[in-house]
Amino acid sequence: MALADHVLAGDQRSAARLMRLADDLHPGVPKVLQALFPHTGRSRIIGITGNPGSGKSTLVDRLISHYRNEGRYVGVIAVDPSSPFTGGAILGDRVRMNRHFNDEKVFIRSMATRGHLGGLSKSAGEVLLIMEAMGCDPILVETVGVGQAEVEIAGFAQTSVVVTVPGLGDEIQAIKAGIMEIADVFTVNKADREGAERLMADIHQMLHMLDAPNGDAETWEPRIVKTVAFRNEGIENLAQAIEEHARWLERTGQDEQRRLKRERLQFFGLLRDRLDDRIGEILEQPEYEDWDRKLLHREIDPYRLAREVLDKLR
Amino acid sequence: MALADHVLAGDQRSAARLMRLADDLHPGVPKVLQALFPHTGRSRIIGITGNPGSGKSTLVDRLISHYRNEGRYVGVIAVDPSSPFTGGAILGDRVRMNRHFNDEKVFIRSMATRGHLGGLSKSAGEVLLIMEAMGCDPILVETVGVGQAEVEIAGFAQTSVVVTVPGLGDEIQAIKAGIMEIADVFTVNKADREGAERLMADIHQMLHMLDAPNGDAETWEPRIVKTVAFRNEGIENLAQAIEEHARWLERTGQDEQRRLKRERLQFFGLLRDRLDDRIGEILEQPEYEDWDRKLLHREIDPYRLAREVLDKLR
Repeated sequence: MALADHVLAGDQRSAARLMRLADDLHPGVPKVLQALFPHTGRSRIIGITGNPGSGKSTLVDRLISHYRNEGRYVGVIAVDPSSPFTGGAILGDRVRMNRHFNDEKVFIRSMATRGHLGGLSKSAGEVLLIMEAMGCDPILVETVGVGQAEVEIAGFAQTSVVVTVPGLGDEIQAIKAGIMEIADVFTVNKADREGAERLMADIHQMLHMLDAPNGDAETWEPRIVKTVAFRNEGIENLAQAIEEHARWLERTGQDEQRRLKRERLQFFGLLRDRLDDRIGEILEQPEYEDWDRKLLHREIDPYRLAREVLDKLR
Repeated sequence: MALADHVLAGDQRSAARLMRLADDLHPGVPKVLQALFPHTGRSRIIGITGNPGSGKSTLVDRLISHYRNEGRYVGVIAVDPSSPFTGGAILGDRVRMNRHFNDEKVFIRSMATRGHLGGLSKSAGEVLLIMEAMGCDPILVETVGVGQAEVEIAGFAQTSVVVTVPGLGDEIQAIKAGIMEIADVFTVNKADREGAERLMADIHQMLHMLDAPNGDAETWEPRIVKTVAFRNEGIENLAQAIEEHARWLERTGQDEQRRLKRERLQFFGLLRDRLDDRIGEILEQPEYEDWDRKLLHREIDPYRLAREVLDKLR
């Protein structure tokens, strides 16, 4: 249990080692995670999503400095789509965060999505848990805004920040529409560019389209903040908006609701992983040889096969 | 079993009724699907994905006419993200397909994704099965290229077509990068616009970046076709490229590989649905009351709870 103790003391090497062991599905890992679990679940998780080119990584870099100045231990999970096209550019961005690499109170972990547009890799929940056990608070989770991962992060996070930039066409906005709906805070980054005011107005208008006319005083109206991350402008305002959202969550009981949602998601993820393993083992038994080929040629019935597999799960 | 017979005879009303029953989780549905299953699995499934504004729906409309001229029964699944923003525009596009609505050999079904950027609704596999049982071949599956659904469709489809248009910025291309990798055929639609040649060249270049230098003669080099769907130009070339891909699949044995992949995906989807139901029932038992709240407050251990739930699955 020495490893758990070192992680709880905030040691980055031990945490990194535990994450590697988890990736390798080392059989000793569940015991360690079990020991960490009681010390977790209290950190604030902030999702930050934006397209490549939005300056999102620079923004995260500035936020790290902001929270470090408050004396906090900052965790960062940078989620990359594992695409040969975007991979290069995004890794380039990451380099900007390098200056925090020697700070022993900043812990940065990169993670690939499952498939190119897929959701989070199944270890995301474990990485969050380990970071919380280390004492990281807040934990910033950076995603590139192209798919399922953003929605999953929004399920884990208490606050979701969407990074936009002026000068992208309407079609970009349409693509991002789905992401707009998860935003608690918008930032118009590169706000020194032409079109910043127009974009602010557009976001306002979109939010009003979304607004359910229920007159509910408990509704959070997403904040819109201007930043020029490159010149470190507007970062305090952004942090302030995130803080306001946190206070609103607590005041309305939404904080517990969002944390409960995260518990459910993580638990179902855990169950799913275990089940996938067992199902894989069952289908590898000799009697199920070529099950997929037999299904394809309609020699067996998927409904009967499903019943058999479920019966064997025990 | 009258319903199954009517579906097998190609009757659209019966098929629509079965799909509604499936949506409502009617207990009689699995028996009907079981009866249909042996008559399915042979249709060609063609995925067509592109951003809003790419003219994708017009293109699908033209392809329907093309296959109707060949005397084929055409199935279409139009997958919509259920977003209040994009919803309007996309439904507008759909109207263009209306002229096929009275054709008793064209069966069109709209379907929402699960969540805004989520994957296919769990009934997608059932809808495909029912369309195949009706005799639909090919089945065109239209998606808007914003997320997980495209990747799932690519798993079901034998051929994936990606629709691009000239005049979108680099950032759009970056977003779409993940989708590029699933394409068997590209079409540059609205090819009468400025920038069409440039876009063709860009796609060529991207494909060469992807190309693994293994000198494998069995590798499919994605076709790039120009279309102006609005004026019905290039549709024959597009259909020809799709046909070439189909012949390549068969010649190389890849056709069976892709169909096997679909069987596996559909079977795991089936299993997952059944398991989700059972797990939901277990967690509703009195002894697990407030399980999520107890997890949140670290009063119970998720690893132990997971083991208990798995033990009860039987």
